[in-house]
Amino acid sequence: MSRFDLLAFDADDTLWQNERLYAAVQVKFVELLARYHPEEWIREQLYQTETRNLEQFGYGVKAFALSLIETAVELTEGRISGRDLQSLVDLAKGMLQGKPELLEHAEETIHFLKGKYPLMLLTKGDLFEQEGKIARSGLADRFRYVEILSQKTAPVYRSLLEKYSIAPGRFLMVGNALRSDILPVLEIGGQAVYIPHALTWQHEHADPPAKGHPGFYQLEHLGQLPALLEQIEKD
Amino acid sequence: MSRFDLLAFDADDTLWQNERLYAAVQVKFVELLARYHPEEWIREQLYQTETRNLEQFGYGVKAFALSLIETAVELTEGRISGRDLQSLVDLAKGMLQGKPELLEHAEETIHFLKGKYPLMLLTKGDLFEQEGKIARSGLADRFRYVEILSQKTAPVYRSLLEKYSIAPGRFLMVGNALRSDILPVLEIGGQAVYIPHALTWQHEHADPPAKGHPGFYQLEHLGQLPALLEQIEKD
Repeated sequence: MSRFDLLAFDADDTLWQNERLYAAVQVKFVELLARYHPEEWIREQLYQTETRNLEQFGYGVKAFALSLIETAVELTEGRISGRDLQSLVDLAKGMLQGKPELLEHAEETIHFLKGKYPLMLLTKGDLFEQEGKIARSGLADRFRYVEILSQKTAPVYRSLLEKYSIAPGRFLMVGNALRSDILPVLEIGGQAVYIPHALTWQHEHADPPAKGHPGFYQLEHLGQLPALLEQIEKD
Repeated sequence: MSRFDLLAFDADDTLWQNERLYAAVQVKFVELLARYHPEEWIREQLYQTETRNLEQFGYGVKAFALSLIETAVELTEGRISGRDLQSLVDLAKGMLQGKPELLEHAEETIHFLKGKYPLMLLTKGDLFEQEGKIARSGLADRFRYVEILSQKTAPVYRSLLEKYSIAPGRFLMVGNALRSDILPVLEIGGQAVYIPHALTWQHEHADPPAKGHPGFYQLEHLGQLPALLEQIEKD
């Protein structure tokens, strides 16, 4: 019998590129404001605005667009033109189009594991945006379950597993964000595979668990996951 | 035995006021642009922008805010100031604060029915915004289930009922929007109670079902629901 009743995968920057879309828009944002402020200051102010707005706006492209606008108005003391602000809305719209760019090994790994475990796509963020990305990714039918949450904290994971009648010890989560995918899962007694991504939003940074923490694994890429699972099943 | 395994309630403008928050912001939006265009034209252009953006932005306050900004830039040919656009972002933030204003009879009706049926809060829209409103409404613990969907169409209702193993004929939905709460539920063989609200977003308008359509009921307010259910149970 397998050690796991459910394997769950984060999506953004675990299965497909996400943060690089934000980074590309930030580059254009910095260019737009370059004659007002130095780059570092612009980036810092944007991050402050995003963090301040999280409580009211939550995650996602629409929240990001509103934070871009707010930061641009602040940093130009209202002198930025309506046209320039519209260009920010247009950049946001561009982020919501097209097929997400899958990470290396994502497609074949998910395809392989689909035959061995029940798989769940488990993301947080804007419901409408995430549904769109999942549909456009071409991976939707590989997952038995899809859950989109507004946040991923220990109580949220706990009630999710209760809803599916799954013991935390028989749950494994795979993701790139220590704060959302790894630490809360370890906290409730689950297992977690951390696959760092070169780009991770500052807000998601957290210290990794202590070395040798039970249930914690780290890989370089998704292609290593089947071998790790085989190893765990043998232990 | 009861005729129903599940009673589901729409939230916005069924349990609490919602559209009036949008209407109040629209009044201020019209004022802001009054020196550029007549009111009717401003309202019509805003509606066109909102409809055009629905596919990319979905529903909710953040999508509305971005449509306000886009419309203001268009209608002023980019002459609107950054400060004025920021005032639109601030209006949107105001919509996301405070306890939702409950409709008359909502509180006692839900409290009464909670003892008789399993209740579900079944809304569409922005996940983050709806979760916030539900939490602030004070009604969250009256509902056994809460489901927030990105849209309410016949296939979505069908798969929801499959997930809960409920036969459509034993499901009753209560709401103010013919297009989202009533017609798709009747289409899959469920029962639906239509309680019109004085304000309903133009996009949600639809023709009511034919008179005498099986499973269709119409009430003036939520306070009449317990008596209607008693009547249906007897029939």
